[in-house]
Amino acid sequence: MSPANKFVAETTFYVRYAETDAMGVIHHASYIVYFEEGRSSYARQRGSDYAKFEQSGHYLAVSEVNARYGKSASYGQQITVRCWIDEMKSRGLTFAYEIVAAQTQEVLVTGYSKHICITHDGQVARLPDEWRAWANT
Amino acid sequence: MSPANKFVAETTFYVRYAETDAMGVIHHASYIVYFEEGRSSYARQRGSDYAKFEQSGHYLAVSEVNARYGKSASYGQQITVRCWIDEMKSRGLTFAYEIVAAQTQEVLVTGYSKHICITHDGQVARLPDEWRAWANT
Amino acid sequence: MSPANKFVAETTFYVRYAETDAMGVIHHASYIVYFEEGRSSYARQRGSDYAKFEQSGHYLAVSEVNARYGKSASYGQQITVRCWIDEMKSRGLTFAYEIVAAQTQEVLVTGYSKHICITHDGQVARLPDEWRAWANT
Amino acid sequence: MSPANKFVAETTFYVRYAETDAMGVIHHASYIVYFEEGRSSYARQRGSDYAKFEQSGHYLAVSEVNARYGKSASYGQQITVRCWIDEMKSRGLTFAYEIVAAQTQEVLVTGYSKHICITHDGQVARLPDEWRAWANT
Repeated sequence: MSPANKFVAETTFYVRYAETDAMGVIHHASYIVYFEEGRSSYARQRGSDYAKFEQSGHYLAVSEVNARYGKSASYGQQITVRCWIDEMKSRGLTFAYEIVAAQTQEVLVTGYSKHICITHDGQVARLPDEWRAWANT
Repeated sequence: MSPANKFVAETTFYVRYAETDAMGVIHHASYIVYFEEGRSSYARQRGSDYAKFEQSGHYLAVSEVNARYGKSASYGQQITVRCWIDEMKSRGLTFAYEIVAAQTQEVLVTGYSKHICITHDGQVARLPDEWRAWANT
Repeated sequence: MSPANKFVAETTFYVRYAETDAMGVIHHASYIVYFEEGRSSYARQRGSDYAKFEQSGHYLAVSEVNARYGKSASYGQQITVRCWIDEMKSRGLTFAYEIVAAQTQEVLVTGYSKHICITHDGQVARLPDEWRAWANT
Repeated sequence: MSPANKFVAETTFYVRYAETDAMGVIHHASYIVYFEEGRSSYARQRGSDYAKFEQSGHYLAVSEVNARYGKSASYGQQITVRCWIDEMKSRGLTFAYEIVAAQTQEVLVTGYSKHICITHDGQVARLPDEWRAWANT
């Protein structure tokens, strides 16, 4: 699922008890937060940092998010979030995600999120060159 | 946006401070929880209750969720979640959502979620007749 | 439990499915958010608004929070959060809380939170007179 | 702060963007979840696992939680949660916590949580001997 020809950031962690629900499994909205954690890790692994990106006066607003749920995860499990850039534009980008059970590598959830680069006063802006270069490697 | 010929459940509430993020607005994952609150309210307004549905031995598992973000909401605002059934099948259904600013009626977020009816041991099952009848009115 | 001689703000709402955990009941950290919702409602019922308070250049930082858990709440239930000011100082205050099952009035959780008034640059500041007057009525 | 003569479990991770609030820092309720993550890690480092504990038919219900907030944490930071057993009884125990900034070791938050061992049908029960032995080392 995750592409062979792109930089794919992996991050592995234990799911949290607070993220379970009364069905006994991880609540579906938690995966949206795991996606975000995946792209945070992507930027860090690229040598950048979303915290510094914000300090430079930009935000990466979310314009769309999509998640498809297959298998569920339970408390006690470790999951691996894989994140890569699916599409890069001058003023926005799309991240794609694949979340698997760390032990079995079974796919749990896949999805994507679309983002627009904006300034602190809400104007659409160009992505920094450093970020745009990520699409090439 | 919300259809004229279908039952649309509305629920209005204040967004919570804990749901804001460092951008100063409601975090995008919070809307996935608002969607869920919208369909909880839908079932209650239909005279049913998802709590009773679960007690009858069924779960409504989420198979996909999608959200498109337009305007953002801030702490102090009331929002209205509109929820209706977009598609009904024998073993699953799709809810659609429109979240607006309660005061201005500006659309903030739209989306949908797909669900499969399963039993406690994970078998796909038929939706109760009571729920299936909702598609007709 | 809630005092007869003080202004007590009540707010009643359904607990959310996302707030449940694998024990089948509302996760204990959710009540800390309900406390916050209780003091948000307190300010609104007093004719003020924490959103305006922040816009005036102040924050109410949390210095301590305490919760004691008795009975648990389940999805499908409505709860009532009661909130009042337990102690008022020139630069801070203590809110106290009692959360009950709306239908039975059984006490679920009690607690308090201590707050310090700070400016946006982190300096301790005096509470607005309007807020301080709340202690007298 | 953390005791020299007790087993102290440490776990270090990045705080998440979703855990920030409109003050620009980590929301105070998030630390209650970090405490829980600290005791999850404690059990794992002890060679046990809270997931297995639950599968054996027990729960560790939270009867009280307390947190004192000093410095705040921001997105982009790593924190270290230290967790140890402060008091062990036959049917319950108290965990204590210290959360520090991973880089500077500045103390951010301290706290404790009290727990009662219960069975799935809500009866108070004795803690497993394995868990009780943790108090001695």
